[in-house]
Formats: sequence, C-alpha cells, structure tokens
Amino acid sequence: MQPVYRLTIACPDRVGIVAAVANYIAGMGATIVEANHHTDTVNGWFFMRHEILASSVPGGLETFRDGFAPIAQQFDMRWQITDSAKPKRIALFVSKESHCMADLLHRWHEGDLPGEIVCVISNHDLLREQADWYGVPFHHVPVTADNKPQAFAEAFRLVEHYQVDVVVLARYMQILPPEICSAYAGQVINIHHSFLPSFAGARPYHQAYERGVKLIGATCHYVTEVLDAGPIIEQDVIRVNHGHTIEDMRRLGRDVEKTVLARGLRYHLEDRVLIHGNKTVVFAN
Amino acid sequence: MQPVYRLTIACPDRVGIVAAVANYIAGMGATIVEANHHTDTVNGWFFMRHEILASSVPGGLETFRDGFAPIAQQFDMRWQITDSAKPKRIALFVSKESHCMADLLHRWHEGDLPGEIVCVISNHDLLREQADWYGVPFHHVPVTADNKPQAFAEAFRLVEHYQVDVVVLARYMQILPPEICSAYAGQVINIHHSFLPSFAGARPYHQAYERGVKLIGATCHYVTEVLDAGPIIEQDVIRVNHGHTIEDMRRLGRDVEKTVLARGLRYHLEDRVLIHGNKTVVFAN
Amino acid sequence: MQPVYRLTIACPDRVGIVAAVANYIAGMGATIVEANHHTDTVNGWFFMRHEILASSVPGGLETFRDGFAPIAQQFDMRWQITDSAKPKRIALFVSKESHCMADLLHRWHEGDLPGEIVCVISNHDLLREQADWYGVPFHHVPVTADNKPQAFAEAFRLVEHYQVDVVVLARYMQILPPEICSAYAGQVINIHHSFLPSFAGARPYHQAYERGVKLIGATCHYVTEVLDAGPIIEQDVIRVNHGHTIEDMRRLGRDVEKTVLARGLRYHLEDRVLIHGNKTVVFAN
Amino acid sequence: MQPVYRLTIACPDRVGIVAAVANYIAGMGATIVEANHHTDTVNGWFFMRHEILASSVPGGLETFRDGFAPIAQQFDMRWQITDSAKPKRIALFVSKESHCMADLLHRWHEGDLPGEIVCVISNHDLLREQADWYGVPFHHVPVTADNKPQAFAEAFRLVEHYQVDVVVLARYMQILPPEICSAYAGQVINIHHSFLPSFAGARPYHQAYERGVKLIGATCHYVTEVLDAGPIIEQDVIRVNHGHTIEDMRRLGRDVEKTVLARGLRYHLEDRVLIHGNKTVVFAN
Repeated sequence: MQPVYRLTIACPDRVGIVAAVANYIAGMGATIVEANHHTDTVNGWFFMRHEILASSVPGGLETFRDGFAPIAQQFDMRWQITDSAKPKRIALFVSKESHCMADLLHRWHEGDLPGEIVCVISNHDLLREQADWYGVPFHHVPVTADNKPQAFAEAFRLVEHYQVDVVVLARYMQILPPEICSAYAGQVINIHHSFLPSFAGARPYHQAYERGVKLIGATCHYVTEVLDAGPIIEQDVIRVNHGHTIEDMRRLGRDVEKTVLARGLRYHLEDRVLIHGNKTVVFAN
Repeated sequence: MQPVYRLTIACPDRVGIVAAVANYIAGMGATIVEANHHTDTVNGWFFMRHEILASSVPGGLETFRDGFAPIAQQFDMRWQITDSAKPKRIALFVSKESHCMADLLHRWHEGDLPGEIVCVISNHDLLREQADWYGVPFHHVPVTADNKPQAFAEAFRLVEHYQVDVVVLARYMQILPPEICSAYAGQVINIHHSFLPSFAGARPYHQAYERGVKLIGATCHYVTEVLDAGPIIEQDVIRVNHGHTIEDMRRLGRDVEKTVLARGLRYHLEDRVLIHGNKTVVFAN
Repeated sequence: MQPVYRLTIACPDRVGIVAAVANYIAGMGATIVEANHHTDTVNGWFFMRHEILASSVPGGLETFRDGFAPIAQQFDMRWQITDSAKPKRIALFVSKESHCMADLLHRWHEGDLPGEIVCVISNHDLLREQADWYGVPFHHVPVTADNKPQAFAEAFRLVEHYQVDVVVLARYMQILPPEICSAYAGQVINIHHSFLPSFAGARPYHQAYERGVKLIGATCHYVTEVLDAGPIIEQDVIRVNHGHTIEDMRRLGRDVEKTVLARGLRYHLEDRVLIHGNKTVVFAN
Repeated sequence: MQPVYRLTIACPDRVGIVAAVANYIAGMGATIVEANHHTDTVNGWFFMRHEILASSVPGGLETFRDGFAPIAQQFDMRWQITDSAKPKRIALFVSKESHCMADLLHRWHEGDLPGEIVCVISNHDLLREQADWYGVPFHHVPVTADNKPQAFAEAFRLVEHYQVDVVVLARYMQILPPEICSAYAGQVINIHHSFLPSFAGARPYHQAYERGVKLIGATCHYVTEVLDAGPIIEQDVIRVNHGHTIEDMRRLGRDVEKTVLARGLRYHLEDRVLIHGNKTVVFAN
C-alpha cells in the first residue's frame, strides 16, 4: 500500500465546491485513489473525502495545505489532511473482559490495523500479561468510588504523555466525567454491547433477555457527555432465540462487539468518519 | 402436505413430562413429523410442540384430546391441539399503506400462507380494490377523534361476525383501546416499523434518522395494553447509511416490514409461538 | 422528488477527469445532488455518476449534452446522461410463478419503482388476471421444444413494439437464444434463485438441499450468452438448516428472490449500475 | 455451568423411539436440560440429542450406557453419550496466517471454548511465540513437495501422541492425503475462505473478485477425500462491493472465517453435529 494523503472536508453546500477542490488537486498533477462525496440536502451541508497518492503531490503535505487554505476559507470549510504514513496513536482503556483488547492487539500485531496501539490503561490489573506479550505498556489505574477525579486525571495524563490521538474504550465499563468527554470530543470511541438506542446503560444483555428481543447487537460510537448517546459510527446484530440464556447472549455478543469495534475504529483511523451534529457521515469501504 | 395435528404444551418443568407425552403418542401408533422442546432453566418452565400426522391418529382429534386430558392435568399443562386442515381465520386491519396487505394477500392467493384471510377492515377507503381482486370482503370503518369507541366496537363486531382467529394490524396506524387488547390477548399481531424497543410510538423512521443509527428494522409482536411493548415474535434489520433520507428508510423498511410480518404471522398460524409472560418461545422453521 | 439528470461516465483513469467534469457542471451553475466516484486501480479505469438537479441546468439535457461532448471525447469516456422524468420502460417476462411479478407490479402501482412496466410477456397463460388488474397488457407467447426461434422472435417483436428499455426475466424459466443475449446486452436482467456462482442452471434449491448448505440466496444479474454467468448486480442470502425441506427452501427463497430483484432493478433504473467487462460498479443507495 | 451428559442418536425413523428414550431417562429420574429432535421425512431417518444433568443420573455414565444399549440395539441406533466434564482435545493445524489460531487460543484461554487445545502443528515456524504465550506446545513439521508422506505421518503421529479428538485446520493451506481423510473421518474440521460450493480450491478471494460477487463468505466443514466437498457445519457471508480489492476481501473475510470456524467448532465440541451422508444435522444454540 503506497502512502496516501486523506483530505476531508465539511462545509455549507453550494455550487462550485467540487470544481474548486478538483481543480486544485488536478492542477498539481496529483492522483486521486478514492473519492467520496455526500450532500445532505436536508441541512444543506456538503461532505467530501479524498485519498490522494502522497508521492504524486509535489512538495508534500505542507505545500498542499498552504495552497489549499484559501479555497477552504472561500467555502467556509471545516477540513483536514492527514498522512497515512503517520498512523494515529491509540490508547486502549480496558477493564476485566479481554476480547476486544485481544482482538485489536492481534490485528495491530498482524499489520491489519491502520494505527499504533501505544498503551493500555486499565482499572484492573488482570490483562497485563496479554499486553506485555505485544510489547505494549500497560498501566493499572484503579478507579474506586472515592478516587474517580484523581483516577481519570491520571489516566488522561498518560493519554497526553503517550501523545494519543484516539482513546478506545474497549469494554472499559467506567463512565468518563463530562469535562473529559468535552475536552476529547471526537477522540474517544466506545463499544456498547447493545443495538443503541435500545438498552443504553448497565447490563444490556440482561435488558435484552428480559425484553425478549430476537436480535442482539453492538454499537461503536463517539463518547459525549450523555451516556451512550454520542454519534454512532457502526452497528451490527446477531440472531438469538428463546433458547439463549443471558450467558449465551454474552458469548454471542462478544463476537459482534469485537467486530463492530474493529470496523468502527478502522473507519476513524482512516479518517472515514465525519461528525456532524450528533450524527456521522461514514465513507466506509 | 399431509394434514397434521399440532400439539403445544407449556407447564412447570419436572421429570417425566416427555416420557408421558411420548408414551401417549407412541401408544396410539401415531407418527411424529416434527418435535421441539425448550426448557427454561431460569424459570423452571417447559415448552413442547409436536406435529403429528393426522392420518396416523386413530379416532382423530377428539379421541386424542380425551385421552390426553388426564396427562395434561397430571402435569398442570397449558395445552392445545389444532388441526392443520382447519386453518386459522385472519382479519387484516389496514390504513393507507398497502405493502403489508398486498404481500399477505398475494401469499394467501398463492397457497403460501397457512391460514385464511376472511376480511379486510380499514379506517380509510383506499385499498378496497386490491382486496376486491382477491375476493376478500373489505369494510371501511372510519376512525375519528370523536368516534373511537364506536369505531372499534364496530370493527371487532366484524371480527366476531367473521369468526376471526387472529387479527393482523398490517400498518393499521391506530392504537386499540386497552379493553380490546386484553379481551383479544395473544390474538392480535402488530408489525411495528422499528427494531423495538428502539423507537416505539410514532414516526420511528424519523426517530431513527435523527439518532443516526446504521441499521433500521421491524418488529412483529403481540399487542398488549402497553404500546409497542407486547411479546416479540420476530425481528429483522437492514443496513442504512448517511446517504439515506427518511424517505429512503421508509422504502427500505417496507421490505423488512412485510417480510418480518409474514414470517411472524406464519409462526403464529402454525402454532409455533408459545407466549410466556411478556416473552415468546418460537419453534421456528 | 424533483427531476434530476443522471450522468454516468467510465473511462481510462488519468489526472484531471474530475476537475474537467466538475468545472463543466459548476460552470453552468448546476446543483449536484449526489456524486459517486470509483477508481479501479487494478485496471486503471475510472467510473463516475452524478445526479444533477434538472431545473438547475440552463437549456436542459440537449444543451448539457452538446457542451459535454468535447470533454467526453478528450478523456475517451463511455458516458450517458438520462432524465429521471423519463423513466425507463420495462417488460416483465414471466412463467408460472408469480411472486416476483406481483412484487414489482405492486411497487410500481404504489409509485415505488422508478420505471414504467409497459407489458408482461409469458410462456403460460396463468398470470394474466394479475397483470390485468394493474392495467398492464399481458401477452401469452407459448414456448415449446419446436417453436423456440419463432416464440422468442415474437416476444422480442413485442419488446420493440412497446419501446422497452429493459427486459426483466422475473422467474421466466426459459433460456434466451445467444443472438438475443448479445443484441440486448446490458438490457436484460435475470433473477437466479441461488447465490451464484453456486448452483447455476436448473433446480438450484434441489442442488442446495443436496449439498447441505447453511445459507441459500438469490442473484440479480445481466443476461449474457453464458447461462447464469453475466455481470452480477445484487445478491443476498437467508439462513437455512437441516430442518428445511426443498419446499421450505423454495418458500424462504421466494422472499430473497423478490427483494434482490427489486433492489437490483432499481439500481439499473436509476442508472446506478456501470458494466465493465463481466463485472459491475454499483453506486447503490 | 453444571456438567451434563450429551446423548446423540441417529436411526431409521419409526414409532416409539422418543418414548423408549424418554422412558429410559425418566425411569432413572434424570433431568433433561436441552432436547432436540429432527425427522428427515425424505430419507426416513431420525436424529436426537439430549443434554442430561450429570448429577441427576444415578450411577453415572457407565450405568447409563449399560442400560441404554438394549434400546439402542432395538432401534438400530448409531449413538454416543459424552460427558461435558471431559472436554474434547483439539490440535490446531496452522500455516502462516494467524487470525483463526489466535482467535481460538484466546477463546480457550478465556474459558470460552468447550474443549482443550493440546497442541499446535504448523508447516512453518512463524506462529510459535503466540502458541508459547498460551502454554500450548508448538510443533514445526515442514511440508515440501518431496516429503509429504513423511510430513503428514509425523503430524498425525503427534495427533495420536496428544490423544487428540478433533483436528482443526485453522487456515493450514495443505491438502491432507486421502488415507488420512478416511482414517479421521468426522474428526477433521476445515475452514474454507469461501461460501462453498462457490470457489473451492485455491485462492477463493481471487476467484470471488474475478466473478464480481456482492457477498463473500466462509465455510466450516468436515474434511473428506474430495477437496472442499465434505459435510458443511456452518457458513456465513459479508457484503462487498466494487470498491473492494482482493486485499480488502481478505481483510473482511478474516473476520468471517474466524467467527464461522469458532461457531462450527463449538457445535462439534458440544456434540451438536450429527453427520449423515454428506450432510449435517446441527442442533445449534
């Protein structure tokens, strides 16, 4: 895979945006590898993502940025361009259940995750050895009823220390304080073990069992101040029936959880997700 | 398809139930075509369904019933036995949208629905011609803010008149009064156009659009006094993305609605659904 | 839904295509409602589809075409632009099974199909009444071992007579002669009742049953000279198990067949499908 | 989870089987936790599986077996009863790709796999460290064009040495010799990276890409002398489109492969799979 630049744009919709961007890219003789557009005709908003072959951009990222800034200003764009050669740095927050962590570590180890897992932070000391095997630093930051402010301060001091780009709550089971949610808006991804908005909050498989649903699911979403209510990136479901106990649901659900998290995280790492209000535009592949 | 008897049983779980039932059936030399068991180990309850070749039961249904009654009493069974040669009689309640009605009428016309559609009742006079083509009586029973008690009384007078076994709310868009819900408990099936318990109530596709979910669904359930909260028979979902408008969701959702309703209704018509509390045991095939 | 023009383009990939197209569109002040791009980096080919608000194009379709021709020539484009206000004309070819025909007729009747069903042609006289109800002319063109050339000639004489844009083999169960397949390349759509390339040819559900697969499916594809081997537009599957007979598979399969056909046909009608070699680019929504 | 006995039965169908078995179980006062029946009415064959609470069987497994033998003889049963407290012993055969091995090892480590992984055998020495971390012996048995008979002899000598009950080809990429396939019939499980019978043999994702299918899949099946043609245990699919390269398909496919293998293997480990001819009865949960 040759390195690419990923240009993402969101702005009010009007005539001429695509032409301006395409002219700029074509003007420097650069090669577009993938292009996606979305016009939200309800809200009059426009979204765009390009993958551009890095080697085809004369002068590289800085030159591109400098030249593009006036266009961005002209169209009131919220925009960024990133380099696939500089993968995002990931912190995994975990608790006792290991399936999501193990799955992500394995993908990363196999070169299958377009990001760098730089640390694991846990409120329990149970999963240290698995992280060790992958050579990823593991930090035990206990969280109790009494020490929450200090614990989360310490955890996010580590996040800063490791220059983390994205925090992944890989079945962390703790609710982050609102001020952290806002400070890191769009940078914290959670996997919730239900098909949201059904069964938000605690013990979703118990809730699903009690309600007698015929499908259970998982939801990968950005964390906001409101519990389990942030912008959804990805969801999936699996069929269950009357014969499945809560324990069976937990077992079946783990497979959905880890797959949905890995898929949603990949989209984020490749800058395929554009947040708009409380929703996402996901240029999936 | 040779006619079968369908024996369904629910009772407290204990040793010897299966043996007693199997001995009784084997004792008369009858042939079991399909058998399903479910033990709810959490609540200590047992569920069972048999399809027995009708021609293999000496003396037929009444003889079977008489001989079985003592066994049923011994084990405190809630039970019934029905004859596939006497299909259940169905009333379709519809409003303006025709996709569920048309789908069920077509299945029935093709011999693909194990029941008899005996009438269509609608609060609008829009779908009469489609029902006419199938030779099914269509009754226009308008419902207004002022006439609800009389309208529902009239609708269910027709239900009685046609000796209906099961009422299907095929996108009826009206909320039945609680006293009818209880009087016809387990006999009224609704299709709700969301993956319940998400987006109960009005305009579920609008709710789904606003929340930004990545899958939309439909739920077939028994109607109870609590809106969209009755025992779930069947559910399914379809993938959507940021490019789908509410109108797109409605279009995609219609396919899920009609399929889920047809599947759930079939289970009911073949006595595959056993209601227990607010949940169902569905011996699907 | 306001009328749109649908511009589709396929050409060798090189720098400047998007810019040239976007400039042309922006230059006339036209509004893009939906845009899709695909670069086939393996074969160096580029595909593009735009929906442009018809009312925003000064001078309309002909003016657009005249101005665009030089650009198309410059980039060696295979291209077309169509008007959603002039829906494609559809002929349904059917045999004895009605589920696909009934489903498409109903969608069309409800305004849910972006095309016009202008005639039904059948080798049996069984489904005439259903077509009649919808006011669609039904032609019985019997096909026997002896009259095949004449029969297909007559059928396609009718296709010409009705100025048909797309022929839909809605479970037609006849193999079109090769010369017709080539004459109407890209204009004949078939629904095959298996997940191709598995179980091509006759009696796919029997084949699936014998092989003991755990999922059955359906495939919507363009017809070519090679049986069941043309470019695939859409596929889907449904789960089966050991308890399902061939008859059960046929029943479950019918739901997949009609849904997959309706979906694939919609893509074609909205010019969302670009054929390239024996594959398709489908800009689905 | 309390230990259970798993009784599986296959025999010609006739009146009285269920009664005989149920009487025997009830006669000893034993508790049935789960029961499944299947009558193959086409072939006149009957299949049955019971989970019986071990602690409720007086005298344990041997007593059960002795008492049951006459019944089995009377009805010409192929049968077995196993003890969940004695989990099956598993050998993983792997090559270069680690995703299936890693997934199974992790499930096993978490207590999530109802079996014991007792060794890993590989034709390459690449995955040793991952196996080491889990404390599972890793054997490198190279396979070359010249040494095949000796290599497979050595591999299956190890299988015997470790008293293996089931061999899992977890992306082993080698074709076992026919004599081993027959000697270990029903004891070797393969994961094939396509939706069989499509794309049997080598490079299925390349085949899928060339054919332009819209879904890719994976198949878990028993190995027989005929390549990729043995009884299918489990299958699943995932959607792809024109934008997916072969490499993307391999990435997406890995998730399906590991999930389908884990599911199919679980069914085997819990004696939920009954092979009959070239098909399976799978009493899934």
